[in-house]
Amino acid sequence: MTYNVGNYLLDRLVELGATEIFGVPGDFNLHFLDDVLAHENLEWVGNANELNAGYAADGYARVRGIAAICTTYGVGELSAINATAGSYAENVPVIHIVGAPGTSSQQQHGRMHHTLGDGDFMHFVRMAREVNYSVAVLDRATATNDIDRVLREAVLHRKPGYLMLPVDVARTPATAPSAPLDVTTRLSAQDVEEDFRVAATEFLKGKKTAVLADIMTERLDAVEELNDFVTSTNFPFASILWGKAMLDETLPNYAGIYIGALSEESTRKVVEEAEVLISSGVEFTDTTSAHYSHQIDPARVIDLGARGATIAGKVFAPLAMADALRILKDAAAEAGAVAMDFAGSENDTQLPEVSDSPLKQDELWALLPAHLDAHNTVVADMGTSFFGMANQKFPEDSRFIGMPLWGSIGYSIPALLGAAMADRDSRGVLLVGDGSAQLTIQELGTIIREGINPVMFVINNDGYTIERSIHGPEAKYNDITAYNWQQIPVGFGATEKNSVILRATTSRELVDACKVAGETRDKLVFIEVVTDKDDMPQLLRDFGAHVEKMHKSA
Amino acid sequence: MTYNVGNYLLDRLVELGATEIFGVPGDFNLHFLDDVLAHENLEWVGNANELNAGYAADGYARVRGIAAICTTYGVGELSAINATAGSYAENVPVIHIVGAPGTSSQQQHGRMHHTLGDGDFMHFVRMAREVNYSVAVLDRATATNDIDRVLREAVLHRKPGYLMLPVDVARTPATAPSAPLDVTTRLSAQDVEEDFRVAATEFLKGKKTAVLADIMTERLDAVEELNDFVTSTNFPFASILWGKAMLDETLPNYAGIYIGALSEESTRKVVEEAEVLISSGVEFTDTTSAHYSHQIDPARVIDLGARGATIAGKVFAPLAMADALRILKDAAAEAGAVAMDFAGSENDTQLPEVSDSPLKQDELWALLPAHLDAHNTVVADMGTSFFGMANQKFPEDSRFIGMPLWGSIGYSIPALLGAAMADRDSRGVLLVGDGSAQLTIQELGTIIREGINPVMFVINNDGYTIERSIHGPEAKYNDITAYNWQQIPVGFGATEKNSVILRATTSRELVDACKVAGETRDKLVFIEVVTDKDDMPQLLRDFGAHVEKMHKSA
Repeated sequence: MTYNVGNYLLDRLVELGATEIFGVPGDFNLHFLDDVLAHENLEWVGNANELNAGYAADGYARVRGIAAICTTYGVGELSAINATAGSYAENVPVIHIVGAPGTSSQQQHGRMHHTLGDGDFMHFVRMAREVNYSVAVLDRATATNDIDRVLREAVLHRKPGYLMLPVDVARTPATAPSAPLDVTTRLSAQDVEEDFRVAATEFLKGKKTAVLADIMTERLDAVEELNDFVTSTNFPFASILWGKAMLDETLPNYAGIYIGALSEESTRKVVEEAEVLISSGVEFTDTTSAHYSHQIDPARVIDLGARGATIAGKVFAPLAMADALRILKDAAAEAGAVAMDFAGSENDTQLPEVSDSPLKQDELWALLPAHLDAHNTVVADMGTSFFGMANQKFPEDSRFIGMPLWGSIGYSIPALLGAAMADRDSRGVLLVGDGSAQLTIQELGTIIREGINPVMFVINNDGYTIERSIHGPEAKYNDITAYNWQQIPVGFGATEKNSVILRATTSRELVDACKVAGETRDKLVFIEVVTDKDDMPQLLRDFGAHVEKMHKSA
Repeated sequence: MTYNVGNYLLDRLVELGATEIFGVPGDFNLHFLDDVLAHENLEWVGNANELNAGYAADGYARVRGIAAICTTYGVGELSAINATAGSYAENVPVIHIVGAPGTSSQQQHGRMHHTLGDGDFMHFVRMAREVNYSVAVLDRATATNDIDRVLREAVLHRKPGYLMLPVDVARTPATAPSAPLDVTTRLSAQDVEEDFRVAATEFLKGKKTAVLADIMTERLDAVEELNDFVTSTNFPFASILWGKAMLDETLPNYAGIYIGALSEESTRKVVEEAEVLISSGVEFTDTTSAHYSHQIDPARVIDLGARGATIAGKVFAPLAMADALRILKDAAAEAGAVAMDFAGSENDTQLPEVSDSPLKQDELWALLPAHLDAHNTVVADMGTSFFGMANQKFPEDSRFIGMPLWGSIGYSIPALLGAAMADRDSRGVLLVGDGSAQLTIQELGTIIREGINPVMFVINNDGYTIERSIHGPEAKYNDITAYNWQQIPVGFGATEKNSVILRATTSRELVDACKVAGETRDKLVFIEVVTDKDDMPQLLRDFGAHVEKMHKSA
């Protein structure tokens, strides 16, 4: 077989770290999929539908730093586009390869299947431009250059990229890459580093200092440096929900999740009353700040972002976040900065007693992390699960994946598939409500087929609880169809050989189920957790009231 | 409660024929959904996800002439956008109401949930413009005018329309409509009618005439007139697959489905060799013409379209299709036009013998329509089912819904829900392959919940058969996850009270299952039909070869 454009694209993806490609076949991508199957370092993971493929790729890229999906033109790509928008909002580099009609078919402007029938083959590219950082309609002459551009920009900017790959372009002969793609970020300028060191040392002199950490620290590859900073300085640190579990929550100086006015009091004080707050990769959204209720005086802040740092508003750029953190470590020592007062979280209480009474949400969220192993990848849907887990300390070396900005319910099941495939050493743990689970439940079949053996907690509480928290607690539109959750996995391929299906209606049953999960690592463990329809975590109740107030004043 | 913009919109939708609204709740549409629940002539139908809601609305609008879905901003609307594109391609008026952040929130350009975080709230409106005929971002001052404009254009042009409804606009006080919306099409010009009559009479003089019918005849409300024309003239008529079952296929002058070079010989002759061919609402696509293999000499054609008619290329406009058909009836009589030769279809053979051997696809598709009642709404997914049914004559008063231009697999299950709810007197019959069914299977839960009691045939043949017909018959990417189809309905709420679940592996079991279906009209009848992985209808085999050839020459 002659080396072709399709092979080139696949080699680049492998080079960037992908060993799987997600998607759904369609007549415009079948030949390219032959190249995927033939590639010795790539596996094809067929999903149940394209939206699920997009979510799976998003979960994979959050772990691997890159992911790819392949769909067909029109029908396939549009089904996945909500996932792409989520990857854009949440800074996740996913490459979407769209198998498209051949160049000459497009030039004939015919009434072709998977088109709107108006002869315009560019509708969907224009749509893709709205939710991708970079987009290319590949052609035979410039395909490899455009592939390199889109891939490079996606990785550099942590945003999705889109490649329309017409059938003839995919099979056009090409030359294999002669050198790896340059995806290094701009280096810090030496004089900027020096200015920042001087200014930071002055600013930190003798000050009570705290740290606030968020997800962009991870996206900018600076977690190691931030971790080094908080462990060596021992400054108390809080996290934004988006960045939960990015740092080790078992450290004594972990001060909890900061969520503006809804924070625990001890967390709020650390963040809002420190003399200097070092904020690393923090981007407040309405959700993570409880509708912009954070109270942080910019005059006290050293902020580290994607483009540079600021000290009380003064800009130091270009300055890479990792470099800034290394400099800050020295500066804090030299300046004699001290830890902001923090006596421990009021949340560090005893675990609830295990009992045979109907399970309460507060028990559920307190017990779960205590009964999870270390080294899990926890994926929580944007509802009760996400807010329930917020104030729970995670075991060491855990990963937490949520989607608080884009907030698309149904994300978690396919994302679990992707995240768990991206790191098979970390067991996947799913936390999803019955309302969210309905949107993407068929990906359970893929999870079983791929044998990733996660633990899946499905909270059966009869509806859209996050919506009930905001408005219409008893309204019909917040009800959902009643599934038979014990039978759902069986329909999608669960057998006694590959799965254990459990049900927990009390805290004792929950703890027992967690025990089975810990002991059964070679099977899917599916746990239906039953709680009352009107029960919800207090944080969610408060959060819902905030959102409702915002809508009423809109 | 003060009458508001939301109430106005709902009253207009009811006026146009909607009695249900499909969708998924989200925080930006909850207050509007209160108005939906409160409306005495509307029911809220909550779907399992937004794509399914969009497909359901499409199926509903094909029957009712209008449908509406309501989703939330960003995450909700983008999940449904593939269905909207399908409605655009296939000329179906679906109104998409998007509950959006309040006007003042949008003006603050904040990093809000369900946005990309870049402060731009118009990304998704721009995307919607690509796949809707008309779009409005509603504001307090002009909301009711814009609602009327979008609804009117959707109905007139049989295309989807999009309304962004910010939370504050929905509750803005409004005045109820004082008169019904004017959705009449332009009338034919009298002099054009007269010119057309004269020219058609001349053109038809003594000619052997045949008719070719397609779906736009239905969209343009001219089926009654076309039916009158073919029954009164007795001219043989063929249908395009898109318009299958629009006319009565039990009539003796029904000449079959015309699909270019893949047509049955008797059908092909009628269409291609008639001295005059009257084509009504025909829009050839690559799929319905077997890659543009139709051979029709324009010099012999009287063509009736949306904007007017042509005779051998000469344009007569404005001329409504229904008017043109009435005129043609008189003209044909006056001109002494005669029926094109047609001795009956070679397909009118005996039904296959019922046996206990493994079921073959050819048996399946021949037996099914023979064992269906009259007055069904048959929805077939764009795969084996669609092509399998093509050459089968349907019982009288049946409806056939497919999606040959947009061709989005997974469409049929939600579309069945919508179509069956739109006409509860016509029983829904689903024909879907196991590959397509996976994409949208959770809507089975809604079907059970709503008690529409259809007959669902799921063809379990182990993969994407339509893709196998085109390329990669044995390739891994055309395999799918093995579901336990007997258990799937149980997971989604099927019980002995509301459902019968059957399995057919031989023609005898199939016929028996059809019998049960006919006798069990108060339950869902779910029939898993097992055929061999490599078996497919001959038409699909030929069609796949055509598509592959096209891709290779692209």
